[in-house]
Amino acid sequence: MTDLTPRPEDKFSFGLWTVGWQGVDVFGPASRPLLDPVEATYRLAELGAAAVTFHDDDLLPVEADREATLDRFAKALADTGLRTEMVTTNLFSHPVFKEGALTANSREVRRYALAKVLRNIDLAAGLGAETFVMWGGREGAEHGGGKNIRAALDRLVEGLNTVCAYVREQGYQMRFALEPKPNEPRGDILLPTIGHALALIGELEHPEMVGLNPEVGHEEMAGLNFAHGIAQALWHDKLFHVDLNGQHGPRFDQDLRFGAGNLRGAFWTVDTLLGSGTANRYDGYLHFDFKPPRAEAADGVWESARACMRNYLILRDKVQAFRADPEVAEAMAAAGVPDLDQPTVDEGESLDVLREASYDIETLGARPVAQEALDQLAMEHLLGVR
Amino acid sequence: MTDLTPRPEDKFSFGLWTVGWQGVDVFGPASRPLLDPVEATYRLAELGAAAVTFHDDDLLPVEADREATLDRFAKALADTGLRTEMVTTNLFSHPVFKEGALTANSREVRRYALAKVLRNIDLAAGLGAETFVMWGGREGAEHGGGKNIRAALDRLVEGLNTVCAYVREQGYQMRFALEPKPNEPRGDILLPTIGHALALIGELEHPEMVGLNPEVGHEEMAGLNFAHGIAQALWHDKLFHVDLNGQHGPRFDQDLRFGAGNLRGAFWTVDTLLGSGTANRYDGYLHFDFKPPRAEAADGVWESARACMRNYLILRDKVQAFRADPEVAEAMAAAGVPDLDQPTVDEGESLDVLREASYDIETLGARPVAQEALDQLAMEHLLGVR
Amino acid sequence: MTDLTPRPEDKFSFGLWTVGWQGVDVFGPASRPLLDPVEATYRLAELGAAAVTFHDDDLLPVEADREATLDRFAKALADTGLRTEMVTTNLFSHPVFKEGALTANSREVRRYALAKVLRNIDLAAGLGAETFVMWGGREGAEHGGGKNIRAALDRLVEGLNTVCAYVREQGYQMRFALEPKPNEPRGDILLPTIGHALALIGELEHPEMVGLNPEVGHEEMAGLNFAHGIAQALWHDKLFHVDLNGQHGPRFDQDLRFGAGNLRGAFWTVDTLLGSGTANRYDGYLHFDFKPPRAEAADGVWESARACMRNYLILRDKVQAFRADPEVAEAMAAAGVPDLDQPTVDEGESLDVLREASYDIETLGARPVAQEALDQLAMEHLLGVR
Amino acid sequence: MTDLTPRPEDKFSFGLWTVGWQGVDVFGPASRPLLDPVEATYRLAELGAAAVTFHDDDLLPVEADREATLDRFAKALADTGLRTEMVTTNLFSHPVFKEGALTANSREVRRYALAKVLRNIDLAAGLGAETFVMWGGREGAEHGGGKNIRAALDRLVEGLNTVCAYVREQGYQMRFALEPKPNEPRGDILLPTIGHALALIGELEHPEMVGLNPEVGHEEMAGLNFAHGIAQALWHDKLFHVDLNGQHGPRFDQDLRFGAGNLRGAFWTVDTLLGSGTANRYDGYLHFDFKPPRAEAADGVWESARACMRNYLILRDKVQAFRADPEVAEAMAAAGVPDLDQPTVDEGESLDVLREASYDIETLGARPVAQEALDQLAMEHLLGVR
Repeated sequence: MTDLTPRPEDKFSFGLWTVGWQGVDVFGPASRPLLDPVEATYRLAELGAAAVTFHDDDLLPVEADREATLDRFAKALADTGLRTEMVTTNLFSHPVFKEGALTANSREVRRYALAKVLRNIDLAAGLGAETFVMWGGREGAEHGGGKNIRAALDRLVEGLNTVCAYVREQGYQMRFALEPKPNEPRGDILLPTIGHALALIGELEHPEMVGLNPEVGHEEMAGLNFAHGIAQALWHDKLFHVDLNGQHGPRFDQDLRFGAGNLRGAFWTVDTLLGSGTANRYDGYLHFDFKPPRAEAADGVWESARACMRNYLILRDKVQAFRADPEVAEAMAAAGVPDLDQPTVDEGESLDVLREASYDIETLGARPVAQEALDQLAMEHLLGVR
Repeated sequence: MTDLTPRPEDKFSFGLWTVGWQGVDVFGPASRPLLDPVEATYRLAELGAAAVTFHDDDLLPVEADREATLDRFAKALADTGLRTEMVTTNLFSHPVFKEGALTANSREVRRYALAKVLRNIDLAAGLGAETFVMWGGREGAEHGGGKNIRAALDRLVEGLNTVCAYVREQGYQMRFALEPKPNEPRGDILLPTIGHALALIGELEHPEMVGLNPEVGHEEMAGLNFAHGIAQALWHDKLFHVDLNGQHGPRFDQDLRFGAGNLRGAFWTVDTLLGSGTANRYDGYLHFDFKPPRAEAADGVWESARACMRNYLILRDKVQAFRADPEVAEAMAAAGVPDLDQPTVDEGESLDVLREASYDIETLGARPVAQEALDQLAMEHLLGVR
Repeated sequence: MTDLTPRPEDKFSFGLWTVGWQGVDVFGPASRPLLDPVEATYRLAELGAAAVTFHDDDLLPVEADREATLDRFAKALADTGLRTEMVTTNLFSHPVFKEGALTANSREVRRYALAKVLRNIDLAAGLGAETFVMWGGREGAEHGGGKNIRAALDRLVEGLNTVCAYVREQGYQMRFALEPKPNEPRGDILLPTIGHALALIGELEHPEMVGLNPEVGHEEMAGLNFAHGIAQALWHDKLFHVDLNGQHGPRFDQDLRFGAGNLRGAFWTVDTLLGSGTANRYDGYLHFDFKPPRAEAADGVWESARACMRNYLILRDKVQAFRADPEVAEAMAAAGVPDLDQPTVDEGESLDVLREASYDIETLGARPVAQEALDQLAMEHLLGVR
Repeated sequence: MTDLTPRPEDKFSFGLWTVGWQGVDVFGPASRPLLDPVEATYRLAELGAAAVTFHDDDLLPVEADREATLDRFAKALADTGLRTEMVTTNLFSHPVFKEGALTANSREVRRYALAKVLRNIDLAAGLGAETFVMWGGREGAEHGGGKNIRAALDRLVEGLNTVCAYVREQGYQMRFALEPKPNEPRGDILLPTIGHALALIGELEHPEMVGLNPEVGHEEMAGLNFAHGIAQALWHDKLFHVDLNGQHGPRFDQDLRFGAGNLRGAFWTVDTLLGSGTANRYDGYLHFDFKPPRAEAADGVWESARACMRNYLILRDKVQAFRADPEVAEAMAAAGVPDLDQPTVDEGESLDVLREASYDIETLGARPVAQEALDQLAMEHLLGVR
């Protein structure tokens, strides 16, 4: 086992709203006192984070304190060496966004939302953030008639085109990352999965400027395989950022610490991020978007944050050992995994060759596929018994 | 209430495998005798269908009978006036495809799969089918290591590019429609949702030749809103075909008759297909892909088929009445639905105007959105109490 | 269609916390101003409710105002003729209950929780409430080691035995109703379904004093059939109360108005409550436990409340018409529904007779079951096309 | 790490239908040849199983071969030392049971089902099986009107009372174990969860003869926590048997090998079976009810079976190490876990004491609960990094 101390080169990043969550939910008020985001920055640095991220309203809830807080925050970044790698806009908390922001039926709300994003982009650029996440938590509906989905997609495209054009005009070095989620807090949300968001990007004026920020729990709320989802995003060269946490399948958004929830899924998530067996490796920040459970006091908040990084490092070690294990390589070969890299039709081959060939489908149908044996090897690496 | 007799212009279409399902499942063998697909064609015509569709193996399970069956089938089409509007290839039943077809790790299997598709495309073209559906039911995995997802997407693209090129070469008038499904029979399936399939299409050599064939139950198995999904597909101009049926949320694939399962969802599905309030209307065939429950004997099979069409016609009537109701128009206006058609930023407007405007967000946050009132009107149209 | 005006004899009841929900959720603060619970009582009476219910903290959040508020509330009840049919205790909002109430690991918290319940029982008795609901929203865990489930069940039984003994001592006419829920706000909650709660009741000292208060959405969050669940509760004579609302399957707790969500499920829920075809009829209050969506302003709150009752009355009409329809009676007979009332073995019949009989299982296996035809009749009653 | 070789005292048991599953599903026919159940018995013995179990139809599909097969099977048991610890009846495969067995609307079918069970009980008794499992896979409905749930529960009780009386009359040493499942192959199944089955048992004439056989995947299909479920069953003294396998939440019944699916859940399942921290320990057979994935050939079938046992032994080791770790004991104490064993009210204590006490709820609300720290310790034991 290698050293499990988080280091800057591990590129761990935390949303200030994660450790700062006070525990307000539908069934009860805050269970924890307000955490000063600047203090949180120092604390995250001590734990080993390389960067922090925030929504405008997390760091700067009170307009009058804006400049003073930014000064304190800048000092904290300088003191700790942390970066602000990503910034995002809160378009979901204030009641003005209760029926949507960039896709609200109210044009005045849409304009306000866009203005709020633009202002925040300037801030982000000033802080050197290179990724700007867009999560449209209230862009959706409970029912069928009140939201024209096709018009809403038009407005979403308009909004994204507008902010992309603005970033280009200003010459900012910044990319956008859309964050899909199927539901909660709205009954159904626009761009519910990685796939829907990828598809929308194809309709933008500058698709190269927009990618994804998928979140483990959001895909798992739809029963989808997160590792498969980010593999497809990487395949499209669109994994611009990632939100790591834990979830127990279709239910409310749990935002557990990374590793909790679907642990085997977390192993394959790390494997996919590392690009194992492919040319697609994620090299961005490893961003934890979790919520320390409401029951915890401050000790639990920091333990939960610490464990996110620790679990990632443990899993990274295990994935690397799995991929380096000669018996695994043999099992991969037995399962035919590398064979899938080979094109089905040879270059220049006539389809007639393929069509006229004779196939012994009974023998092929009876062939071993050796997937269970391979998966059990992965299981034993994960459990630390190899 | 208008006449609910299905007519050819309603464009109802049935898979021969639907009424032909014998009831084999994981827990028991066939509960119904084999139904001759040609007989089924006559029967579906009597019930009011305008077209039938099939997998190669449904119509032509025995190679030796191929020509004779095709002759009988051609006669049935001629006798009844039915069309073969869509054909699809069975790439999931024979054990040869147990670990995938176009994305099997075995290259030999991939080549056989491709050959099977090509042969079936020729058949489809000969029958005048304009849509060719691709459902990759076994393209997926139970576990993480045995399938390289990125390589699998490469192979899927290779396969689709190959068949598109073939269709172009042959000069066939045919488009492909991908059918997404999240899981079952594999633990996780490639292209699990409408969104993932739309995204993949963007990577093809001829994206204009490939669209979607979404199925109600498949999206609902992931807890997704089907009407929202097909609205996005229509917005991308990619709703090439549609599979109508019923499902009770995340569980096994139920393939209930259309209307059963999520009835309110079915209302909004019909509304979306009719393009209500938009310029995007679906004008293809209304294809039922359902399974008469295994418990039913022949009477139940046909009742179930009849009810699919009848429920569509009932819902179409209700949707049209809802959209024509002046009180609904008022409620739509009160909910601001038409306002979403208006761009957020005026053409040529400087963003400075928007950024420097003053927004009364407290008043906007307290505004009525009137969604419940509008939804209750829809409910009452659905229930037939208006 | 009969008159759809709610009347006192319809026994509609509302939680004061339903229309009073201000819209606080995990992602945003209140979107609506505080609603005075006494004003809400007058308003619900105008809409046609027969009763109101509350948690102690809904009506009496401020200890200093307790007596004054109770006086105003008593006057409202007298003015309107409404009853307080049920009272419940809030054991989930205050952070003191963050890790459980009657099953908190902290004994001091458990003692406080019990004291809070006892005080509230006195209040309930004084108001003439005959049902006292217990929902243990925070009784559960996110993870496996921190809660000894068997000890927690011991404590739950201890708590229930204690309050039952107290009610007997005081001579109150009051029964308890347990409310199951699978998860949210805790990762997993004790007594997750109707079944688990029924089972626990069997272990109490006075099982006759304790029954259930099942909620539509809570069972549907586990993918369970609510009508089946309350049918089993009625069969055990344990349906003491019911919470009606709407939900879209496994996801966050939506608390939609009754009818929204699973509409066909709502039809069978009403059918089951009416005891159709059985000797088990529910004759308690029809209690709506829903949340007007956060986006709505006051108009939407009251429209949503109004529609809960209206949808119940519409569905009741339809269920009664369905059950009175001679064609339905025929279809029921064809489906063998009444045959299930007949015992399988005759009274006094030797099992040898049954064992030695010859069964033509092939013919029986091929028999029509006629379920689709019957279900389509129900569908058409629901849609108002018969 | 201790030796991971399965031994008879580990009491591992396998259904003959598990390794014998040929891979038939809704979407394809058998992918594996028929496995002789007697051969399978020898093979399971070699792998380390202590017992086998079967449905009548697994072992004895052909009436004419019954005696010969029983002789061969008896010899296999004698040769290997394996026991038949449990027997169950197939009441779900033959089309005669397509609409239910003990709760079929057809009385003739119910009588046949009962006769089939009785005959099989005699066989089970002859083989010395002490547990007789009842899974009513087709006892349910797709729709609301065709099945009178309350009558169905009456018939289920009648059936169970009949078989209990028979066993008593015959003087067999045999207990019954009900197996709950929420759905599949029926839309909704009677006794959908552990809780519902426990509740029904309370209505039987001889409740002491009937307990549960819960299956990991069946509870997880409803999103329920399996460890919590069996903890409640143990608390009622009703965990008569257990079916171990793996599942990925609400979707089709996956029947993965034990450990696959929800691995953290498997850790707590083993912990609960071992009775950690309680007086309730399960001491019955550890029965694997899984399906080797359809894609696998024979090698994968046996690898999958082998891994079920191996994963159990690995997890048992880890659970024991976790429970023996002094740091875990400290973390348990810090989390207040042992405090829950203490009654909330002292014996003989007046409730007035508790009611009149003063509670510092702000301080209690702010207390540390230390659940994350404890859970992270469990995680690290599971991952083998402590």
